[in-house]
Amino acid sequence: MEGTSAPVAMEETTAPPMSKKEKAKLEKLAKKNMMKQMATTQLNADDEEDALAGNYGDVAMENLQSKEKSGRVWTQVGDLGQDHAQQTVLVRGRVHTVRGKGSLGFLVVREAGHTVQCVVQVKENVVSKGMIKYVTKLNKESIVDVEGLVVVPPKPVEGTSQPVELHVTKVFCVSTAAVQLPINLEDCARSEVDFQKGEEEGKKFVRVGQDTRLNNRVIDLRTPANQAIFRIQCQVSALFRQALLDEDFVELHTPKLIAGASEGGSSVFKLEYKGQPACLAQSPQLHKQMAICADFGRVFEIGPVFRAEDSFTHRHLCEFTGLDFEMEIKEHYFEVLDVLEKVFLTIFDGLNEKCAKQLKAINEQYPFEPLQYLRPTLRLTFAEGVAILKEAGHDVDPMADFNTETEKTLGKLVKEKYKTDFYILHRYPSAIRPFYTMPCWDDKRYSNSFDVFIRGEEIISGAQRVHDPELLTKRATECGIDVKTLSTYIDSFRYGAPPHGGAGVGLERVVMLFCALNNIRKTSLFPRDPQRLAP
Amino acid sequence: MEGTSAPVAMEETTAPPMSKKEKAKLEKLAKKNMMKQMATTQLNADDEEDALAGNYGDVAMENLQSKEKSGRVWTQVGDLGQDHAQQTVLVRGRVHTVRGKGSLGFLVVREAGHTVQCVVQVKENVVSKGMIKYVTKLNKESIVDVEGLVVVPPKPVEGTSQPVELHVTKVFCVSTAAVQLPINLEDCARSEVDFQKGEEEGKKFVRVGQDTRLNNRVIDLRTPANQAIFRIQCQVSALFRQALLDEDFVELHTPKLIAGASEGGSSVFKLEYKGQPACLAQSPQLHKQMAICADFGRVFEIGPVFRAEDSFTHRHLCEFTGLDFEMEIKEHYFEVLDVLEKVFLTIFDGLNEKCAKQLKAINEQYPFEPLQYLRPTLRLTFAEGVAILKEAGHDVDPMADFNTETEKTLGKLVKEKYKTDFYILHRYPSAIRPFYTMPCWDDKRYSNSFDVFIRGEEIISGAQRVHDPELLTKRATECGIDVKTLSTYIDSFRYGAPPHGGAGVGLERVVMLFCALNNIRKTSLFPRDPQRLAP
Repeated sequence: MEGTSAPVAMEETTAPPMSKKEKAKLEKLAKKNMMKQMATTQLNADDEEDALAGNYGDVAMENLQSKEKSGRVWTQVGDLGQDHAQQTVLVRGRVHTVRGKGSLGFLVVREAGHTVQCVVQVKENVVSKGMIKYVTKLNKESIVDVEGLVVVPPKPVEGTSQPVELHVTKVFCVSTAAVQLPINLEDCARSEVDFQKGEEEGKKFVRVGQDTRLNNRVIDLRTPANQAIFRIQCQVSALFRQALLDEDFVELHTPKLIAGASEGGSSVFKLEYKGQPACLAQSPQLHKQMAICADFGRVFEIGPVFRAEDSFTHRHLCEFTGLDFEMEIKEHYFEVLDVLEKVFLTIFDGLNEKCAKQLKAINEQYPFEPLQYLRPTLRLTFAEGVAILKEAGHDVDPMADFNTETEKTLGKLVKEKYKTDFYILHRYPSAIRPFYTMPCWDDKRYSNSFDVFIRGEEIISGAQRVHDPELLTKRATECGIDVKTLSTYIDSFRYGAPPHGGAGVGLERVVMLFCALNNIRKTSLFPRDPQRLAP
Repeated sequence: MEGTSAPVAMEETTAPPMSKKEKAKLEKLAKKNMMKQMATTQLNADDEEDALAGNYGDVAMENLQSKEKSGRVWTQVGDLGQDHAQQTVLVRGRVHTVRGKGSLGFLVVREAGHTVQCVVQVKENVVSKGMIKYVTKLNKESIVDVEGLVVVPPKPVEGTSQPVELHVTKVFCVSTAAVQLPINLEDCARSEVDFQKGEEEGKKFVRVGQDTRLNNRVIDLRTPANQAIFRIQCQVSALFRQALLDEDFVELHTPKLIAGASEGGSSVFKLEYKGQPACLAQSPQLHKQMAICADFGRVFEIGPVFRAEDSFTHRHLCEFTGLDFEMEIKEHYFEVLDVLEKVFLTIFDGLNEKCAKQLKAINEQYPFEPLQYLRPTLRLTFAEGVAILKEAGHDVDPMADFNTETEKTLGKLVKEKYKTDFYILHRYPSAIRPFYTMPCWDDKRYSNSFDVFIRGEEIISGAQRVHDPELLTKRATECGIDVKTLSTYIDSFRYGAPPHGGAGVGLERVVMLFCALNNIRKTSLFPRDPQRLAP
């Protein structure tokens, strides 16, 4: 919302003066509560002679230390609607904007990204000039309790998310924010469209850079888009988990502290563990597979994954949330793809169904096209992917991995041809997959592996694993890995190991790509990259 | 189950010979599949002249490399019941025990802790002597595919979990276990009662120590009790999560890599992060609170917590799974207790309702009394706890923390007096709580804090937090903490902070104490303690 234009709009939409009945009701309410509120608030020095001073003020600390359970009920700002009309409600939220004009004050209160306009108008026995003075002096982002009558304005309020106004009867400040905020929330919440509009009107808006935002993440996270992003992230976890629980998967928690270095490849974070060398798990791969060898059948984990890579891209983090699963395969790695497909269609459908409000909030700041996906999901072999690229005139090595650019190109071509942003590429060349990937039965140059793409970017990697200790030893040797360093891993398969496969997904990437955001730091609550370890 | 007695029991309970119709059906089925199976299996050298060799053998590697999707359906051993009677089913499981006797073989197949007896009997055109020979030579713990007719025996089979038998028509080995297993599953699964019975009968059973089990965790985890423990753990997570989602909580993932050392107290794991000193989060405390200051209202996290403490007790781990939540408080920390109570009653009720099978499996190896709990949950102040102890003649300092022994004693006294294993102790002395705990409004020697106990052991710790930066600074100083080291933490509250509180629970402790297990290593999949970093 645009804060600067809001007060004007609000003034225009203020409801007509109260009826006598309303007034009497409010007065009665005010008197009833006055003694109580006098006892529970501090008076401002200015207001010593205000007989209505009990209706506003800073709440004394002792009243925030669990002094009483009054039975009062708070309504959430985001729930305020026309069905509350003519009810007196109590809300707790932040001072989003505030503006005074003679005997009228305008306070926009925000809670979890939702905003409501609160009108403070002098009224006998209820609202004094002192209250308006008090309200207009409130620091932005302070936490306030506001009691007021819900009024449906004749014209909808512009610039707030809720369609109603509160006609304030009481205001108490629960926590005062510093006068000077390091970043301004309105600046953080402004969309590209608003920037352009402002420019056309000759306004100069401040642009808050990604680093400044992250340095002040506690404020930055309060924008409607950020409130929405992490509620969507929560839904992705919840849908992923429930889809797998419904398929008889068991949720595990595998250790993140690992002796020595976990499965080769990208670099690891090393530490000393009680005198032993240790590292942080780069993936739950080994332990997931051990759980399969330990008869859990189908397992999954949602947990942190640590990568000490020096990747300064829009899509890499040093710590991210892995959504991993592993399952017994009876015959074919397509069984893994079937589960994967079910899980992701559940996630996409679920987000569209349950998170309409949140998707709208994100769209308002970062406009994006809704994700297109087919049912069933498109499955192409790697070779088919190569053919599509070649057909379009791109010269690609059919046995080498695609780079990010090629993946994006393929994504566009697939979108044109099949009308989907979500698809599976499988049967990758063995040479570009880890040694523990099961080779294809008919051509060992290829493997029973897959990647999954959203909007041309990889979000999932998975495969059937080699469950046979002899073949595993052979594959490691062929890949030039010292088998001695793998003995614990290989030994896990010596006591009977069912064929199995699985996949790993990055939670932050799913959210980023579903919403077509341009940086993974936007979907990590407190991101960690090679240059950022705080807050 | 007792493996040694099983085969005898099985023999007695073998169903009567097949009817002609059954036989014809099986023969038809066998012929139909023979050519296919011949192609998909390796023949054993011994069996070259066996015309029925296509009905058994080791599966060739290429047939485990996703060669085909045949459409065959596998039934789970744990699902096999009388409603499958006279149906031909296919199961995949482990060779639990095997025994041959002339033209009869007995194979107990185990899947996820469930066992079924499979009878291999020579039958014209279906089962040859070669098959019996093959079956009896299978190594324990190998993975096998068994096809057979489900038969309800006249007397229930002893020593297996499923009430039916399979009359085998085909057996294929999918993965061969090493001849020599480091630990024997039957030894791992034996209960104290069985040990005593064995002793009385003059049998000498092997006792597998905790360390040996953990060194060979992949095998140890296959026991029915362990299969049950981690399915219960999964349910605890699921119930905790759902109860909080239902209460409008948002699931978060906070970083585990922290700059410097996280909140004081017990020692931390240190590491180098791209040239900066870093450590592993000892709790999500700081980031949970930041999320509250970032307007998420109510948040929770399920994730690893790292403690480098040198605690060699039955209840401490260096890495465990924390169930943490934090929420805005409108007036009183009892709001936190109300949520806590709801969540834990949901968990207890849910486990009793959904995990009857699993609780039975645990009970068979580790007998325990079901948890007794009241509705609503008993809440006592710390002072009331002290009084109960004093009344019973225990001399305790009313302002000092209870030690583990005293907690257990109080647990017993409370159980006697109130008939509950689960209760809350609140209003602890401020001196024994962290500096960020909110003091009571009426007596700052006490704090708005609580611990929760199951069977006399603490599982949860929580409190209302100080949300005011001035009071927080004052409290830190009073506690002798250098405020400079806390600047990031304290600054989070300077831009408006709602009153809030929360709690942290150890997942492994909940499972351990619900099931009255004696060691937390039993409820951690791959435990980490000061002396164990593997597997």
